[in-house]
Amino acid sequence: MIQMRHITLLTDFGYLDGYPGIMKGVIYRIAPSVQVTDITHSITPQNIQEGALVLFRSYRYFPTGTIHIAVIDPGVGTNRRPVALRLGDYYFVGPDNGLFSPVILEARKSNDPVQFIHLNRPQFWLPQPSNVFHGRDIFAPVAAHLGSGVPLEALGDPIDDPVLIPLDEPVRTPKGWIGKVIAVDHFGNLSTNIMDTHLAKMEQITIYVAGHTINGLVKTFGERPPGELIALIGTDHDLSISVVNGDASSLLGVKVGDTITVEGKSTK
Amino acid sequence: MIQMRHITLLTDFGYLDGYPGIMKGVIYRIAPSVQVTDITHSITPQNIQEGALVLFRSYRYFPTGTIHIAVIDPGVGTNRRPVALRLGDYYFVGPDNGLFSPVILEARKSNDPVQFIHLNRPQFWLPQPSNVFHGRDIFAPVAAHLGSGVPLEALGDPIDDPVLIPLDEPVRTPKGWIGKVIAVDHFGNLSTNIMDTHLAKMEQITIYVAGHTINGLVKTFGERPPGELIALIGTDHDLSISVVNGDASSLLGVKVGDTITVEGKSTK
Amino acid sequence: MIQMRHITLLTDFGYLDGYPGIMKGVIYRIAPSVQVTDITHSITPQNIQEGALVLFRSYRYFPTGTIHIAVIDPGVGTNRRPVALRLGDYYFVGPDNGLFSPVILEARKSNDPVQFIHLNRPQFWLPQPSNVFHGRDIFAPVAAHLGSGVPLEALGDPIDDPVLIPLDEPVRTPKGWIGKVIAVDHFGNLSTNIMDTHLAKMEQITIYVAGHTINGLVKTFGERPPGELIALIGTDHDLSISVVNGDASSLLGVKVGDTITVEGKSTK
Repeated sequence: MIQMRHITLLTDFGYLDGYPGIMKGVIYRIAPSVQVTDITHSITPQNIQEGALVLFRSYRYFPTGTIHIAVIDPGVGTNRRPVALRLGDYYFVGPDNGLFSPVILEARKSNDPVQFIHLNRPQFWLPQPSNVFHGRDIFAPVAAHLGSGVPLEALGDPIDDPVLIPLDEPVRTPKGWIGKVIAVDHFGNLSTNIMDTHLAKMEQITIYVAGHTINGLVKTFGERPPGELIALIGTDHDLSISVVNGDASSLLGVKVGDTITVEGKSTK
Repeated sequence: MIQMRHITLLTDFGYLDGYPGIMKGVIYRIAPSVQVTDITHSITPQNIQEGALVLFRSYRYFPTGTIHIAVIDPGVGTNRRPVALRLGDYYFVGPDNGLFSPVILEARKSNDPVQFIHLNRPQFWLPQPSNVFHGRDIFAPVAAHLGSGVPLEALGDPIDDPVLIPLDEPVRTPKGWIGKVIAVDHFGNLSTNIMDTHLAKMEQITIYVAGHTINGLVKTFGERPPGELIALIGTDHDLSISVVNGDASSLLGVKVGDTITVEGKSTK
Repeated sequence: MIQMRHITLLTDFGYLDGYPGIMKGVIYRIAPSVQVTDITHSITPQNIQEGALVLFRSYRYFPTGTIHIAVIDPGVGTNRRPVALRLGDYYFVGPDNGLFSPVILEARKSNDPVQFIHLNRPQFWLPQPSNVFHGRDIFAPVAAHLGSGVPLEALGDPIDDPVLIPLDEPVRTPKGWIGKVIAVDHFGNLSTNIMDTHLAKMEQITIYVAGHTINGLVKTFGERPPGELIALIGTDHDLSISVVNGDASSLLGVKVGDTITVEGKSTK
């Protein structure tokens, strides 16, 4: 049986230029039968933390063996290392700047197999790579070679010190948690770093955000009339703030990084 | 012969987040060899009528047997039903909220085979589906199972009362028709609900829109100089208003829902 | 061995409508096993020069044999010819309006095989093509037939006079070059028509743009602190102007067509 191999792209390149399309061309040229899928190209330019989060929330939905290319790369062309990683059942290719931190930390916590390779063998790159577009010149061809059967360890030397960046965790308070908005989606829904597990032993929950108070959580949008401000558990087990059929970010003037406070009573 | 199976996506999720990419991951994980194609993710949020129109104008261009997933779903997580439909040579998966009305009405008018299934068998979903993202948790996995060979009728119980919403039809007047702008495209062209069939027995046509008068139809943009306001039959047999090499929507200040009037003489 | 055939799309259709998705449907219906890839749909509406440039910078990264469909087509439905071209190892399908000029000129300069076909055989189109959407009705089906094995010369009559448009070349001055900004990317980086070859025999380079002076070139962004205005050789051997981790286009108020001046000393 031929198993189709999957490669994904997650970048801050936007949709204005041909950059993601060119990366696909490079991949298909080396590995004509892989399937390339866009996760997103709309990460805020140079925002490694946001890219790391979106990648962490997305990667496991793909087939095992998928190779995830992630390029948020303000240090392109400097001495930051290009890397390829195996973390559990997935592969990752991109700059060694913290972008893979949440996935690495999770794999280590789960005792999954982890393998880090410094991409230092130019025979797997495009000839004469530019200093400004390693997505095209290094990461796409390396992922394509990996997808067409080259073993991970052939791509470069092993390393054991990948760059890790701190993840924003919510802060415990006597009455609950202080967290942050970590993403705003296309609908204006606010995703926070407070997870359902943080709220598991709390009851009579009240949420404070941008001068507004929300009493309790609902299960879904349709429970309340259009225009009402609600709190609910979002797409990724995260506490989310929404306006029914509306845009919470615009209405509240809240953006990524803003504070959200949760208070309640302990159930024990 | 192996026939590649096609699945499409039409949503209001935008391109900002990884949501459409995650849906593709879910599909490829279950059905690694299908081909997934975006129709669009730019439907106005929660606008079921607009989504229904774009789907209706697009679905038949795809290979027969294509499975169209459509998710404009303000009622996600409430008691609105998730459904899968067979209509003629195509399959449809999404919320039962009227999104499929034009396709259903056409299939019934054409005496095409129609089959409606209530998706109530969780073994074909992701485990523990969220209340807010059925695109990922129910519709994508169901479409993937269908694409990998599970029969439609295995996915749930048959029903015969899909939700239908009224479609905007133009109104007959003594001298012609009063219609509406139902879509504005990327170029600013105005698409209306007045079709070439409505105009078939009229001559000396005059069009009134936003205080402007247009005399007669042209065949294509290049017949007139840049900047001129024109009326023509558009991409889908629809009366369309354009500015040559310009943006009619901006220039006229016209948007979806605005009125357009056509007058002329009867040819009989 | 079955070689998967690749088709790309480059248009000014944007991502708002289903147009590119519909073109993919038409292609897959005729050639179910090709792989269709978006280069971009964000070319400025009707800007043939910009489309020609992006296509020229992208096409060679794809597998040889790839069929590139390009549709920036203000003359759709007039007597401008629809064409299919073979240029070296690649195929091109679209309007005969100059869009393919840089690729044609390069192929001729390299003595690559060139072949021009006027698409005048409707049996390879959709039935009853519209006057306004040849991307769907002519170019997509023709490319799909080509991708599924129909020989190029079967698609229409040979011609030898494709439309060529002048390309913007920089002007030589006593001290260096006067060039133009020819593209602004998603990050706000300014790409110019001055290439590394123009600068090969110059030293002590100074760049003047929008009242700012930049002394010398850097190799990559990370050499300088965030916020600094820099000049460097960009993704395509082009002189580029950037702000480290910022947006040069916004900061300088510079857009496509604006002038850039380079001065220096000759190395000989």
